[in-house]
Amino acid sequence: MIPTKEELISSRDRITPNIHHTPVHSSAMINEIIGLEVFFKCENFQKMGAFKMRGASNAVLKLTQEQRDKGVTTHSSGNFAQAVALSAKLTNTKATIVMPSNAPEVKKKAVIGYGATVIDCEPTLKSREETAQKVVNELGATLLHPYNCYDVIAGNASAALELMEQTNNLNAIFTPVGGGGLISGTALAAHYFSQIKVYGAEPLGADDAYRSFKTGKLIPMVNPKTIADGLRTSLGNKGFEIIKQHVADIFTVEEHDIINAMKLVWERMKIIIEPSSAVPLAALINQKEKFKGQKIGIIISGGNVDLKHNYFK
Amino acid sequence: MIPTKEELISSRDRITPNIHHTPVHSSAMINEIIGLEVFFKCENFQKMGAFKMRGASNAVLKLTQEQRDKGVTTHSSGNFAQAVALSAKLTNTKATIVMPSNAPEVKKKAVIGYGATVIDCEPTLKSREETAQKVVNELGATLLHPYNCYDVIAGNASAALELMEQTNNLNAIFTPVGGGGLISGTALAAHYFSQIKVYGAEPLGADDAYRSFKTGKLIPMVNPKTIADGLRTSLGNKGFEIIKQHVADIFTVEEHDIINAMKLVWERMKIIIEPSSAVPLAALINQKEKFKGQKIGIIISGGNVDLKHNYFK
Repeated sequence: MIPTKEELISSRDRITPNIHHTPVHSSAMINEIIGLEVFFKCENFQKMGAFKMRGASNAVLKLTQEQRDKGVTTHSSGNFAQAVALSAKLTNTKATIVMPSNAPEVKKKAVIGYGATVIDCEPTLKSREETAQKVVNELGATLLHPYNCYDVIAGNASAALELMEQTNNLNAIFTPVGGGGLISGTALAAHYFSQIKVYGAEPLGADDAYRSFKTGKLIPMVNPKTIADGLRTSLGNKGFEIIKQHVADIFTVEEHDIINAMKLVWERMKIIIEPSSAVPLAALINQKEKFKGQKIGIIISGGNVDLKHNYFK
Repeated sequence: MIPTKEELISSRDRITPNIHHTPVHSSAMINEIIGLEVFFKCENFQKMGAFKMRGASNAVLKLTQEQRDKGVTTHSSGNFAQAVALSAKLTNTKATIVMPSNAPEVKKKAVIGYGATVIDCEPTLKSREETAQKVVNELGATLLHPYNCYDVIAGNASAALELMEQTNNLNAIFTPVGGGGLISGTALAAHYFSQIKVYGAEPLGADDAYRSFKTGKLIPMVNPKTIADGLRTSLGNKGFEIIKQHVADIFTVEEHDIINAMKLVWERMKIIIEPSSAVPLAALINQKEKFKGQKIGIIISGGNVDLKHNYFK
C-alpha cells in the first residue's frame, strides 16, 4: 500500500537519530542568472553522501528484532550499498552486500569500512539478483530493494518534509528520476502537506520515466547512455504508480545541459554534487520562462563523484 | 596602531550587512581519521568565494563620503580584486582594479561583472604598483592593500569571532598564512576574546612566514613554488608584528600533503576548497599527535579553484 500521511511522519521520526538534518543552500548569482529563486536541499551533505541513507535507514529500522538478527542484504554498485551498510552498522545489524565485480574499488572499501560483508558477482542484473537470493536463502537475511519498496520511499520523503519546513511558499520541487524512489517520496510529501507541485528531471539518454509518464505505461530502460550514473536504472512500478498520480510533469535534458548545470553549482556554490543531482537544475534552466519569478526547491540527491574524473575540461 | 578589541567588534558590526554569516561544517569521518574534532569555518561560502570579502568590506565602509566619491583602487590578480569590486558595488563606490595581464580571464570577468573598471598591467609587482599609483594620482582614488592594512585585518577578524560563537571550547584555530591578513585578524580575535591558541600553516615552497617567525626578522618570499596560489605572497610587516605577539607556532607542509588534505575535504565533506585552504588541515594531520583529542577550528579561506584543472589525477 502506498505510504499514508501518518507513515511519512512516523518514518521521518524513526530515522531522525540516524541521519543528518541537511542544510538548504542558495546562490544569489544563480537566482540572478535564471530569474527565479532556487533552494537546494543538500543531500550531498547527508551521511554517506546521498539521500539513499534516508530510505535505507527506514527500511532497516522497520525490521523486527528477529529479522535484524538474521541480517539484511541488497545488490548495488553504489550509493544504496553504502546506505544499507551504514544503516545496518548503526542498528547492530549484519549486512551482506552483493556488488558487481566492476563496482568502483573505493565504493567496495566504503561498504567494508561500515562493517558489511561484500560478495562479488558478475556485472549483470541476473547475477546480482541470483547472488542476493542465495544470501537470502542461506542466511535468512532480508533483501532490501533500493527504490521499489514503500519503506524506502517513505524514508526518502523526509528530505522533502525537511525542505518544506526550511523554506516558505515554494511553488515547486524538482528532483532527478532514476528508479523513482526519491521523486515518489517527494511527491507524496508535497501532496499530503502542501500545494507544491513536483517535477521530475531525467537525462535524454535514460528517459524511461519520461516515456512511461507520457504513455501511462511502464517502459523499462534499455541501454541507458548518460553521465548521470545514478539515473541509469529503470523506474520501479511502485514509484510509477505514485508518479502517475502526484507528479506534475517530467522534463528531459541533454548531456551538455547536465555538465553546465553541475559546473554552475560547483563554481558558484562551492559544493560538490554528482551529475545526477545537476539534472533537475538543468531542467529548470531550460524551463526558466515557465517558472519565472517562482520559488523552486531542488533536492540535490548526492555528492559522490569520482574526483579523478575531469568533468569540466 | 594594531586594532583594539573594540575595533574588532565595530568592524564586525560594520560589515555584517554586506557579508554572509558562513556556516561551520564538520565530518565525523575526518574526525575519526585524525583522532580529534575539527570545525571548519566555511569562508568558501562567503560572497565572491573567500574571506577577503570581510577585510575589503571593512576598508571600503570605513572611507569617508568624500573618499568614496573619488573611488577605490587595488592591484590584485585574484580574490582581493573581486572582494574590492563587490564591496565597492555594495556601497555605490567606483572601483578601478589593476590586474596583471596574466590574471585568469574568469577573474577579470568577475571583477567587471561587479561593475568595476579593470586596468591591465605587466605581470610584475613593479608594474602593478606603478599602475595603481597612476590611478591614485589621476582619480584621487584610495589605494586598498590586500593584507598590509589594519582595516583589512580587523575585518578579517570577524571570521574568527563568528567561529568562536558557533563552537564551544575550541583549543586552537589553524589558518593558512599568505600575506598575513587572515592569521593576524584571527590571532587578535582569539587573544582578545578567548584562551584559544592560533597556529599558522604554510607550504614549504612559500615558507617566508615560517622563517620570519622562527628568526624574528621579516624575510620576503623569493620565487615561491606551491600549488597554493593564495599563499605565494610575502608576509606584510603589519601582520608580522601581530603574529610575533599572538601566534603560537607556524607549521610547514609539503605539496603532496596539501593535495591529500584537499582531496579529503572534497571527498568527505562535499565542499570545494582551494589549495590554500587545505594547508591548515594538512598541517593538523601532520601534527595530529600533538593535538590529539582536542577541538580545533580551521578557517577555510576560500573556494575559488580552476575547475578545468585536475588536482587529483
